[in-house]
Amino acid sequence: MKIDSKEIDNFLVGLLKHVGESLREDSIKKMSVATKKNRNDLVTNFDKKTEKFINSEIKKAYPEATIVSEEGYGDSVKDMSGLVFFVDPIDGTMNFVKRGDDFASMIGAYIDGRPLIGAIIDVIGEKIYHGGKEIGLFVNDEKIDNPKDLPLVEGLVDVSAPMALANKFNVQSVIKKSSGFRVYGSAGIIFGHLLTGKEVMYMSYLAPWDLAAGRVMCEASGMSVVSIDDSPINMLESQVVIVGTQKVVSEALKTLKAR
Amino acid sequence: MKIDSKEIDNFLVGLLKHVGESLREDSIKKMSVATKKNRNDLVTNFDKKTEKFINSEIKKAYPEATIVSEEGYGDSVKDMSGLVFFVDPIDGTMNFVKRGDDFASMIGAYIDGRPLIGAIIDVIGEKIYHGGKEIGLFVNDEKIDNPKDLPLVEGLVDVSAPMALANKFNVQSVIKKSSGFRVYGSAGIIFGHLLTGKEVMYMSYLAPWDLAAGRVMCEASGMSVVSIDDSPINMLESQVVIVGTQKVVSEALKTLKAR
Repeated sequence: MKIDSKEIDNFLVGLLKHVGESLREDSIKKMSVATKKNRNDLVTNFDKKTEKFINSEIKKAYPEATIVSEEGYGDSVKDMSGLVFFVDPIDGTMNFVKRGDDFASMIGAYIDGRPLIGAIIDVIGEKIYHGGKEIGLFVNDEKIDNPKDLPLVEGLVDVSAPMALANKFNVQSVIKKSSGFRVYGSAGIIFGHLLTGKEVMYMSYLAPWDLAAGRVMCEASGMSVVSIDDSPINMLESQVVIVGTQKVVSEALKTLKAR
Repeated sequence: MKIDSKEIDNFLVGLLKHVGESLREDSIKKMSVATKKNRNDLVTNFDKKTEKFINSEIKKAYPEATIVSEEGYGDSVKDMSGLVFFVDPIDGTMNFVKRGDDFASMIGAYIDGRPLIGAIIDVIGEKIYHGGKEIGLFVNDEKIDNPKDLPLVEGLVDVSAPMALANKFNVQSVIKKSSGFRVYGSAGIIFGHLLTGKEVMYMSYLAPWDLAAGRVMCEASGMSVVSIDDSPINMLESQVVIVGTQKVVSEALKTLKAR
């Protein structure tokens, strides 16, 4: 199978543009639904409908590829051989439901286990972060520079709320050494922040579809993506992941306790 | 002194438009400054320059008014009689410095202690939240409806990071009963979220200039603004403040311990 990463990048950007338009319409519909029960059903439907659409478009363009996705329309993927797509149709569902902003849709492409292209749309911000190691990184059509390798003391960190509040892994010690703590509530939105230097670390328990696109781009930008015990990332399992500048991840690993 | 709240609203919106344009330029200049020391000096300069400008414009338009402001260019205000303006030139300084977004500029106007007009600009989002009880509330030129009186379980809450991480006042019990925890790091930005129903509660230790504009608008929108021990808000002192829907504030006060 001949793989052209520029072609896959173009394909994913086109796909997420379409998904973004559709989700912006859904977001308005959702707001007009009166009862809570109906609203939650509708949101689940939006998730499923979006994943079904993304997966079928991928299968049309890349019939030989396998798909790992959140809502059950993907394949049963046992290993990372060949072309594998990871799909998260709506990331930050609570933000989608409660805020109507700061939610994302994400697709990551891997070839024989190697990160190839990532694409994340900030749906309401109308920004698509995309690219990979071979072709570089972009926000919409604009090429972006790699973020500076800042130390912990110079940047803001985003840690999943349950982890931070319970001080799991001694994470509050890391937070206290930083410039400040933020919680935006969507992995996709936070990957956008990391790629543009707005934050220097993200730590959370992430499923494969939460991590795949962001991992491709953060590694391509020179950042580190590691598991809490510094073992290799397993793209077919959920795990606690630390993403950040090289300096910050190295500092964090010294402070965190991988209990 | 004859007070026309529509006229004050127009004046504040015009003033914040100007401040917003200027801060967007400053934000670009700041990014280009190389060393950390210089950058911090520059930020302090931006704060002071902006406050000086806002205060002098207020004094030109309302020479009889007194001003309470953060950076020392205001008056020594001992009581709330007459027309009093509260000025926070850059709210969310760490976001201004580290992110380049999610920071605000805020002005609140009070007459004889009574909340009159609030105005907050989300500088990068280019949104001005403004208005008061008499004239209603607006985002830029668009009138906004009051947010729904949602209970805690149905909404996202934003609590200052040090308070949440240390579980001060037992606040983690409140957070756990909500839909989720967010930290955006700027009172002005969070007041915007509350006014548009994106979050249902904000709790933090706030100085008068942090609170003044948001209090005017949140009260005008039917929300509650209370101190942690449910005593009346004192606009000339810093205090722990809870702002939220009536249902949420009532639930929170039952759970919080005002130690």
